[in-house]
Amino acid sequence: MIRAGIVGISGFSGKVLLDILLKHTGVRVTYVAAHTTTGRVDHIWPEFKNRTDLVCEKYTLAGAVKNCDVIFLALPHTESMNTVDGLLAAGKKVIDLSADYRLKKVSLYKKWYHVDHKDSQNLSKAVYGLPELFREKVRKARLVANPGCYPTAAILGLAPMVSIYPGNIDSLTIDAKSGVSGAGRKVAEGLMHSFVNENFKAYRVLNHQHTPEIDQYLSHLAKRNMNVTFVPHLLPIDSGILETIYIRLKTKIFDKKLFEFYRKFYKTETFVRVLDLGSQPEIRNIVKTNFCDIGLAVSEDGRMVVVTSAIDNLVKGASGQAVQNMNVMFGFKETEGLL
Amino acid sequence: MIRAGIVGISGFSGKVLLDILLKHTGVRVTYVAAHTTTGRVDHIWPEFKNRTDLVCEKYTLAGAVKNCDVIFLALPHTESMNTVDGLLAAGKKVIDLSADYRLKKVSLYKKWYHVDHKDSQNLSKAVYGLPELFREKVRKARLVANPGCYPTAAILGLAPMVSIYPGNIDSLTIDAKSGVSGAGRKVAEGLMHSFVNENFKAYRVLNHQHTPEIDQYLSHLAKRNMNVTFVPHLLPIDSGILETIYIRLKTKIFDKKLFEFYRKFYKTETFVRVLDLGSQPEIRNIVKTNFCDIGLAVSEDGRMVVVTSAIDNLVKGASGQAVQNMNVMFGFKETEGLL
Amino acid sequence: MIRAGIVGISGFSGKVLLDILLKHTGVRVTYVAAHTTTGRVDHIWPEFKNRTDLVCEKYTLAGAVKNCDVIFLALPHTESMNTVDGLLAAGKKVIDLSADYRLKKVSLYKKWYHVDHKDSQNLSKAVYGLPELFREKVRKARLVANPGCYPTAAILGLAPMVSIYPGNIDSLTIDAKSGVSGAGRKVAEGLMHSFVNENFKAYRVLNHQHTPEIDQYLSHLAKRNMNVTFVPHLLPIDSGILETIYIRLKTKIFDKKLFEFYRKFYKTETFVRVLDLGSQPEIRNIVKTNFCDIGLAVSEDGRMVVVTSAIDNLVKGASGQAVQNMNVMFGFKETEGLL
Amino acid sequence: MIRAGIVGISGFSGKVLLDILLKHTGVRVTYVAAHTTTGRVDHIWPEFKNRTDLVCEKYTLAGAVKNCDVIFLALPHTESMNTVDGLLAAGKKVIDLSADYRLKKVSLYKKWYHVDHKDSQNLSKAVYGLPELFREKVRKARLVANPGCYPTAAILGLAPMVSIYPGNIDSLTIDAKSGVSGAGRKVAEGLMHSFVNENFKAYRVLNHQHTPEIDQYLSHLAKRNMNVTFVPHLLPIDSGILETIYIRLKTKIFDKKLFEFYRKFYKTETFVRVLDLGSQPEIRNIVKTNFCDIGLAVSEDGRMVVVTSAIDNLVKGASGQAVQNMNVMFGFKETEGLL
Repeated sequence: MIRAGIVGISGFSGKVLLDILLKHTGVRVTYVAAHTTTGRVDHIWPEFKNRTDLVCEKYTLAGAVKNCDVIFLALPHTESMNTVDGLLAAGKKVIDLSADYRLKKVSLYKKWYHVDHKDSQNLSKAVYGLPELFREKVRKARLVANPGCYPTAAILGLAPMVSIYPGNIDSLTIDAKSGVSGAGRKVAEGLMHSFVNENFKAYRVLNHQHTPEIDQYLSHLAKRNMNVTFVPHLLPIDSGILETIYIRLKTKIFDKKLFEFYRKFYKTETFVRVLDLGSQPEIRNIVKTNFCDIGLAVSEDGRMVVVTSAIDNLVKGASGQAVQNMNVMFGFKETEGLL
Repeated sequence: MIRAGIVGISGFSGKVLLDILLKHTGVRVTYVAAHTTTGRVDHIWPEFKNRTDLVCEKYTLAGAVKNCDVIFLALPHTESMNTVDGLLAAGKKVIDLSADYRLKKVSLYKKWYHVDHKDSQNLSKAVYGLPELFREKVRKARLVANPGCYPTAAILGLAPMVSIYPGNIDSLTIDAKSGVSGAGRKVAEGLMHSFVNENFKAYRVLNHQHTPEIDQYLSHLAKRNMNVTFVPHLLPIDSGILETIYIRLKTKIFDKKLFEFYRKFYKTETFVRVLDLGSQPEIRNIVKTNFCDIGLAVSEDGRMVVVTSAIDNLVKGASGQAVQNMNVMFGFKETEGLL
Repeated sequence: MIRAGIVGISGFSGKVLLDILLKHTGVRVTYVAAHTTTGRVDHIWPEFKNRTDLVCEKYTLAGAVKNCDVIFLALPHTESMNTVDGLLAAGKKVIDLSADYRLKKVSLYKKWYHVDHKDSQNLSKAVYGLPELFREKVRKARLVANPGCYPTAAILGLAPMVSIYPGNIDSLTIDAKSGVSGAGRKVAEGLMHSFVNENFKAYRVLNHQHTPEIDQYLSHLAKRNMNVTFVPHLLPIDSGILETIYIRLKTKIFDKKLFEFYRKFYKTETFVRVLDLGSQPEIRNIVKTNFCDIGLAVSEDGRMVVVTSAIDNLVKGASGQAVQNMNVMFGFKETEGLL
Repeated sequence: MIRAGIVGISGFSGKVLLDILLKHTGVRVTYVAAHTTTGRVDHIWPEFKNRTDLVCEKYTLAGAVKNCDVIFLALPHTESMNTVDGLLAAGKKVIDLSADYRLKKVSLYKKWYHVDHKDSQNLSKAVYGLPELFREKVRKARLVANPGCYPTAAILGLAPMVSIYPGNIDSLTIDAKSGVSGAGRKVAEGLMHSFVNENFKAYRVLNHQHTPEIDQYLSHLAKRNMNVTFVPHLLPIDSGILETIYIRLKTKIFDKKLFEFYRKFYKTETFVRVLDLGSQPEIRNIVKTNFCDIGLAVSEDGRMVVVTSAIDNLVKGASGQAVQNMNVMFGFKETEGLL
């Protein structure tokens, strides 16, 4: 039984983390903290009444170090980087759900998050927590940079193609759609029911901060420079992401070959489900789960591949994947708490 | 005051047509018919109680000819082509909302709609009813093929680029999203609330019957062969389409130039609104209206243009556009009943 | 052609008012103002692009007096009462959509709205703008207190029973459900999509400020004291109210008699539709319309009547009714702009 | 480890049952059957891919008897009563989620379900599976009649009052609202997205088949005849019920006393959460859980109590409660698989 701490319980990721960890047979949640919110967790989130007596306290390094073997940081971007170093120095393992340790170049971080990186020394220690692709590194990691929601769906959807046939790729276009919870628990007019319900729109067109994260890891997998066109949209639903990925090829491919190739690539992965040709992922099949469902189609001329990739942004795209990483880091069964 | 008939009142398009025509100052609805449904219109659609006493009768050619100057056919595909010829022979003007007269080649019709075309003789008379692009032809038309919902958003979004710079286009990809009413008033499991609500999925990937319609009219505008990659998706909302259109260019373009060019192209068009750079169309701004809102963005390198185009599939994508066509054909103010 | 002004364009009621008035054949909107928001109306509400060039200015008495024959106040509660007197003094007609002139007793106003009434002198001049019940008074009114949304549905649903058989009523219980727009355009966590979508709850149980308004006008109709039990709930939809009203009777009634009695009561009223026995109102049939649909049912023992009453809270429950009042006040056809 | 069978996997209750049982540490699902559907469970419900290899077979008594210690019948009403006797005769324990064994009088069954009861001999053996109220009987039961969704929320919301102060109750009115999944997986126009979304309506007003079930068990608890006025409504959400229950009292009660009394009544019950005065249940807090949240309010004069009671109709209102019953029957921890 390991002791886990959650920092940032008042956000959606913190809430989902707690929900998963309360069901996990190998973990006890021993510490819940936030920077501003305090008080009983079931007052912050009434759904936890009769499930936990935990009390959220103001975050202190000493408190976290004393109570935890592993600390999940479910903090806003730019706050994690002020928190990580002390925890690592105290020998703790850290899983950071923010964007702070995902980009390897501080210049890129500054460009997209508009602040200087405050903890560049620990950047190189951070392992990108996509277990399906980087499991061995995660196993040994002391600091995991838990992937962004859009990048998780994009990279899992593209990894087979990009890893094996990078030279055949002519262009990559990702049309991404996300439920509202992806924006976090912000009180903003654009997130009000009256402005989201029965609506749909693109936002941050060609200008979303997850783009460099996708580019970085695809380039890593491809061993060459990869750049995607990325346009996100806001779905009038609570959770779930579906990305429609257009891969233009230089030489043609047959759909059955593509399918076998994807299926083989993810053969041993419980959480990535490559659907039969003719089947398409639906958000309802993956919502509240840690699965990533992948659909495949090829144009008649064999030159355009359409990959559809669906995850729950709060589970496989955040807290579920964080627990999956913890399972790998601490030797639990990888699916524990997640199936 | 002209006399209008609606054939196919039990479908969504028929209902919206009646709603618009009841408000139109130059039209009286004198005939409502269907192939199977009969009875008081306010029993078929309770929202019309106290608005109309019209009774839906079983369709007969004689009934339509006797009562109408113009007949709107809001029938399922393949039914219109059995109905049009008699009406034209009797000297009536016909606006057909089905797909039956949109494709110029009967072979394409057979490929995508899986039946032989029964009225090829009248195909050449049919004018494609996109008034913004074919107004003069519509003015003289006796048979209007009212455009499909997806093609309306796609063609309006692409017309400026395709008409003026066809040679600069490297590829066209349309990621389309539609509300449920686009599927018509069908009772099918995939359209049940439990299977649509909080869900999202792609369907008919690379295989939607509106693809050849888009290709045909873009090729016509471009005066060369154009082929789009087209993937539709089902939004968990009632009405509204948003298409995100990716135009890869051979040579770069600046966003301000693109914007001015689009703005100028649609300068005199009330129903097409080119939004300022930085603004994006939202379905809530066009739902229940005849507007098409267009947003524009260009990648940093100037080689990727993203056009977003939004319409209400039942209004500008069907019944509103049908009334707009009628207005043009009969010399009414083009916006009458629609603003 | 009369000249109308809208004060408070940035709220939902202001927006819907403008939408209706732009279609009204007897009115020109000549003045749009607000207390804080200024600028082009189509920047405040993008859906008005290409429909109007109106510019919202900071409200001044002089501006309103100079430009308008009638002024609609779509202001928050407690703001209207600072605005009305000057307009009346200048001889203008005023339709106030706030709660400020609905309660006849200032003590009740203070109890429920938590401030002293600032304009008690004009309270007695205010006519409660439910044309179906108070048409003749509205016709002569200079100041109309436009009814609240919940009271409109409640009073129309109860008026026949309360007016004719007050002595037979043992108790009145109103279980009311409203879409989110009823809360106005507020940015508050409880109105965020994440907290409304797929949710439902009661709020202000036995403690809603519309309760005394309902009691006051029912008592007026009954000519005796009437008190309702009133519990409102928040529906996860944009607009629409449905109230389920339980009337316990002292002596029994037959459903057919009840139906005939209601039907007769509203026989000449276009906007109140008494549905056949066995039919129930649905929000989708009245949304975006000025109709109030009423359903009726009686228990086997004849002692419990269930009236269901449905309106669009922004139309019949606010702006539509305001225009209906204007039509009555200025001698337009009562349905002008509303059908 | 006991062996469980699910008969009726293609319905929503069957699906949720399987989801819960796959996570239960003391149960192995060894048999999945249906009357018409057959084939891999993950083809029937794609969300189970990579979670189970179970195959649904055509139901036979022999198959069920051979493979199971306990059988869950998630069948439509009127089908269970043809299935139960053979299972009981073979010594199996049966948990029936249909209505077939809930009503003790066959005449009532016939009146409300329109068929003769075919298995009246086993009616007396059936224990009503509300563990909070009938735990000891459930413990010894061989046949559990799992309660209906509306009755579960109603009876839990009323049990304290009805059990302790039946003589003080003047009248009981239940205004119930349910998500669409309560109607089951039926393909009917009224359940299509276009007819549910952004809509709300009452249905079966004063005429719902759950009314006699509520009356029967309330009367049992009260030890006198109890009759409720019951009106259900359809919410435009997937799952969740909220009932607003109006209790008119003969003598007044104070809210604090009421609260203490309810709190004490359910003190040892994990799944019933009596909320603090001033707090109201919300469907989002109980959806996908086995909790029943109860809110309380009292009118100023102390004579009207408003109880709000919320459950997930598919969990506490069906499959979760069924597993809770199984836990009691087989000596598992009562919350196993449910927290």
